[in-house]
Amino acid sequence: MIPKILTLFVLGTLAGFGQNAGTKRPVTPEAAIRAVLERQQTDWNRGDTEGFLLGYDKDTVFVGDKISKGLEELRVRYQSHYPTRASMGRLTFSDVEVHMIGADHAYVIGRWRLERMAEDGGDTGGVYTLLFKRTPRGWKIIVDHTS
Amino acid sequence: MIPKILTLFVLGTLAGFGQNAGTKRPVTPEAAIRAVLERQQTDWNRGDTEGFLLGYDKDTVFVGDKISKGLEELRVRYQSHYPTRASMGRLTFSDVEVHMIGADHAYVIGRWRLERMAEDGGDTGGVYTLLFKRTPRGWKIIVDHTS
Repeated sequence: MIPKILTLFVLGTLAGFGQNAGTKRPVTPEAAIRAVLERQQTDWNRGDTEGFLLGYDKDTVFVGDKISKGLEELRVRYQSHYPTRASMGRLTFSDVEVHMIGADHAYVIGRWRLERMAEDGGDTGGVYTLLFKRTPRGWKIIVDHTS
Repeated sequence: MIPKILTLFVLGTLAGFGQNAGTKRPVTPEAAIRAVLERQQTDWNRGDTEGFLLGYDKDTVFVGDKISKGLEELRVRYQSHYPTRASMGRLTFSDVEVHMIGADHAYVIGRWRLERMAEDGGDTGGVYTLLFKRTPRGWKIIVDHTS
């Protein structure tokens, strides 16, 4: 017969494990922001522009060759710049730095690269500065300056 | 003889005027930030690069054709891109929008234009996104993405 004290100890330990397994590790703002960017890469690279756009706030401002305001203008911009799956190529972000501004904002600096066949526009790339905001729907890009 | 009560009234009124004249109107963060940008234009347009650089924080990050970190790298960049007074041309900022992020940060979106003689590089221009921070030395640019 197992002593009661040991049973309680074992049950307590198991309960503890169960609790740990069920509890999510706390996600830091930086990790949450990096997850948004990784998700954007994945969505882009499977041709899912709508998934990619989920990284943006509805009032986002995109500063590129011209300034686009709001998600709808940004959608139109992407549709005109990348009309086909082939023209979207394969996107990679690199050298990503996340800097918090208080608890609810952050800026991100990074590099982007698009690998494409010559007939689809060829390789291209550059740098970007993003401004993220914590919203009820998660961290969203409110400003994107890409060049 | 002037009645004492009138004398007191006149003196009181004059004191009131003096007080108003000596009191500065409160400067909003947006007005302070716009003043930094106006000062930068003025300094640039009289060839005062050091004055222009006073708008930046010492740890500023400049995202342009490449990424420059810190005021010294930025100074070197300006010296190499604009080696002569003529190459600096005449700078104008326009369509400047200032958006506060909390009390101590703001982002600014605007357009820049440089008017130059053809032999000095010709006219050029583009867009910029700035991130400003309130510091003990005033509002300073901590990130500048110019394209």
